[in-house]
Amino acid sequence: VIDLSRLSHILQQDCQLVPASLVLIGVSGGPDSLCLLDILYRLGYSLMVAHLNHGLRKEAVADELAVREAARARGLSYISKTADVAGYADKNSISLEEAAREVRYRFLFTQARRCQAQAVIVAHTADDQIETVLMHLLRGAGLSGLKGMKYRSLPNPWSKEIALVRPMLDVFRDDIQAYCAGTGLHPVFDHSNLDTTLFRNRIRQELIPTLETYNPGVKSHLLRMAQTLAGDDQAIEMLTQATWQKCCSECSAMYVALKKENLQLQPLGLQRRLVRRAIAILRPGLRDIDFDTVEKILSYVQKPSRSGHLDLSSGLKLMQEGKTLWLASNERDLPNREWPQVSNEWGHLCVPDYVDLPGSGGWHFLSESVSYLPEAIAQAQTNADPFQVWIDVSMEQPVFSIRPPRPGDRFQPLGMDGHSVKLSDFFINVKMPKRARQLWPLVCKQDEIVWVPGYRQSHMSRLTPQTTKAILIKLIKD
Amino acid sequence: VIDLSRLSHILQQDCQLVPASLVLIGVSGGPDSLCLLDILYRLGYSLMVAHLNHGLRKEAVADELAVREAARARGLSYISKTADVAGYADKNSISLEEAAREVRYRFLFTQARRCQAQAVIVAHTADDQIETVLMHLLRGAGLSGLKGMKYRSLPNPWSKEIALVRPMLDVFRDDIQAYCAGTGLHPVFDHSNLDTTLFRNRIRQELIPTLETYNPGVKSHLLRMAQTLAGDDQAIEMLTQATWQKCCSECSAMYVALKKENLQLQPLGLQRRLVRRAIAILRPGLRDIDFDTVEKILSYVQKPSRSGHLDLSSGLKLMQEGKTLWLASNERDLPNREWPQVSNEWGHLCVPDYVDLPGSGGWHFLSESVSYLPEAIAQAQTNADPFQVWIDVSMEQPVFSIRPPRPGDRFQPLGMDGHSVKLSDFFINVKMPKRARQLWPLVCKQDEIVWVPGYRQSHMSRLTPQTTKAILIKLIKD
Repeated sequence: VIDLSRLSHILQQDCQLVPASLVLIGVSGGPDSLCLLDILYRLGYSLMVAHLNHGLRKEAVADELAVREAARARGLSYISKTADVAGYADKNSISLEEAAREVRYRFLFTQARRCQAQAVIVAHTADDQIETVLMHLLRGAGLSGLKGMKYRSLPNPWSKEIALVRPMLDVFRDDIQAYCAGTGLHPVFDHSNLDTTLFRNRIRQELIPTLETYNPGVKSHLLRMAQTLAGDDQAIEMLTQATWQKCCSECSAMYVALKKENLQLQPLGLQRRLVRRAIAILRPGLRDIDFDTVEKILSYVQKPSRSGHLDLSSGLKLMQEGKTLWLASNERDLPNREWPQVSNEWGHLCVPDYVDLPGSGGWHFLSESVSYLPEAIAQAQTNADPFQVWIDVSMEQPVFSIRPPRPGDRFQPLGMDGHSVKLSDFFINVKMPKRARQLWPLVCKQDEIVWVPGYRQSHMSRLTPQTTKAILIKLIKD
Repeated sequence: VIDLSRLSHILQQDCQLVPASLVLIGVSGGPDSLCLLDILYRLGYSLMVAHLNHGLRKEAVADELAVREAARARGLSYISKTADVAGYADKNSISLEEAAREVRYRFLFTQARRCQAQAVIVAHTADDQIETVLMHLLRGAGLSGLKGMKYRSLPNPWSKEIALVRPMLDVFRDDIQAYCAGTGLHPVFDHSNLDTTLFRNRIRQELIPTLETYNPGVKSHLLRMAQTLAGDDQAIEMLTQATWQKCCSECSAMYVALKKENLQLQPLGLQRRLVRRAIAILRPGLRDIDFDTVEKILSYVQKPSRSGHLDLSSGLKLMQEGKTLWLASNERDLPNREWPQVSNEWGHLCVPDYVDLPGSGGWHFLSESVSYLPEAIAQAQTNADPFQVWIDVSMEQPVFSIRPPRPGDRFQPLGMDGHSVKLSDFFINVKMPKRARQLWPLVCKQDEIVWVPGYRQSHMSRLTPQTTKAILIKLIKD
């Protein structure tokens, strides 16, 4: 038997319905929805009955009339629509079942919006729940699949304001049949099977009876399992939310930045959830996040490769930059770090001079002659600001070019007497963010790199006791 | 094919084995254990081979010789024992399969202890894992069952120091067969089926092939599900551990005290875990904690009944005391709260006097005459210490009795002129802890209650402007 006081409790506590406020109920006319309609009516809920004629079968008209009559007999408002489900399926190249589901829910939510209903209510049963859980199990699922459907879904795929509620998730079909028989309800033949794919039908008619030969109580076990797992999932989602704050440093629809070290500290299960959440932010439409993609990211988090790059399915890339892991479709999508960047056109720097860095917001070079040399030598020796430099110009006219790196550039960093390195290697060694490299401004004398602002001057340009003339250059951000 | 470098990684990372330190391997002689033996030997692990002859079949002797030979051929130490599994099953009224399992693990761990092995290693496969998961699913399980077996179990039912490790949980039997064939190993027929009940055999031979007709990839899905759920379970256990600190105020093998309000604040899934943990502390032997018991406690936590008592299966009781929920077999088992308690024998109190409270550690009554009455009246009016009282003795000789409550006791609390209440109701109203009530000391004049220490004096005993003589009584804890 259906425990009405329990159902009433679920409607208020779990579904969070307010009896006085309108609810839109989807009624096919089958036993489940007719039973739910009758119970809600008896419990005094304010109802609007909605029926979708899928336009697929002849009997559909009779079904529609039956639902209309069920509403009329109770003095309830009624709305119906005939849809071209077959056409929709064709047009979108999806199965008839998927099309029916999509068209139906769209209809229900459109109507709910129109009549300002607090929720759309549907009559999924405990049997539906178990079938759903088994489908997820067979197709491969984690906790979020195994926990089954929820009493209340908000947001849901159809609305961010109107909840989708399913109060009968622990009521078995047998009890619904008994309720209908006992209260003289006359459901139409349950065409909601339209909703059920062949796969679901096989699960219902073959697999569940088979499982019952292993354990006659398997249905109630699976139902309880789903309930327990729903609680676990909620708890772990709460933990994920709290940990997300610690692990995500930046986030938009285009990119997610994760703090590598904080991520590494988390237990594996939580790392998995955090990575899934990052992917879900960038790929909100993705229904199933690939297991292997997640595992690939996790092993990268444990041991990032030197190159700092990981191509993932679904067109995402994982990029390492210092202690940050960026997830994005492309490097281009990452936020502007406000580094100094130079356009491909060169600039020139005289002394004294003030040169705006073209192509980079707010950065400019300043140059000036040094008037008192001993002081400059002392300052240069203890210089802690990598964005200022003292340069020996004893031998030559102080005119410099400012340009981005070029293939084949070499550089002889301060302290490396007689040795030059590839500029690209130097960038790696000093851990310059990869995407800053291409347009990093270099200060050159003729073609020789004199200063890599922010990192190092060249060995030859340093002040020595032999220096007779020096200049000071600064790269400054407003 | 078996990926040896992956297995080697699992042995070190997940099983946490140190190659140089001894491992005891249980070898039945079947393909799984023989394959594992061969691989560990090739990877250079230091091994002791152990074989249990279950004494149930004729072929067992041949199996034993085969294992002995496998050890000898690799120059490994070997130990075996013949057990009377059938006798053990009889004696303990358990199934042959359970007996075999118990006798075998005991033997392995006894030997591991003897030879100071770092771990006992066994050859459970991915197929075993999937069967285990399905068994749990059919019998009703939460996350901890669905996650299956672990690579490393410590503590385990047989030891708190020696780990039980299972490195082959993601290697399928087919690959093991191929390994044996490819490396010329000659396993005996796999009698480890002794380990498998009829139920497990049906799952292996019938259910899994059936599930594969629904989805050919179901085995790998189930394996991944178990891995994912293991991570989730670990994360949620971490959260449970952290929350336990906030919710459990006291805990021993006899009782658990939970802070009701903190418990109520947690999401349902976490409440469930905390309650399960409390039960597991008091009933460590309990293999499955009953779903209904947990749900019963949870709904009690949401809405405790007035009586503050909940009888649970497994002989536990949930008792409410103020903001604390006690879980214990019996009220007797709860810790002594160090309340004042009096034995059933009475005591007498004169003035001045010093009386040790019999039956209660460290509590004593002190009485003295009041010398300056106006001051006493003023003090009595602003008295904030419920363990001291001023009593009017203008009319009578100050001699009091001290006794516990009796059935039928009535009391007229200060301020309730002309009205007396049942003492038992008074106790409830002032929220005296239930289990303190029976032996709470009362100060009486003849049979009339003059003072309930810690709570209230009687209306008649108060000081008034007409008082000519007064005494002060204190109940003090050292």
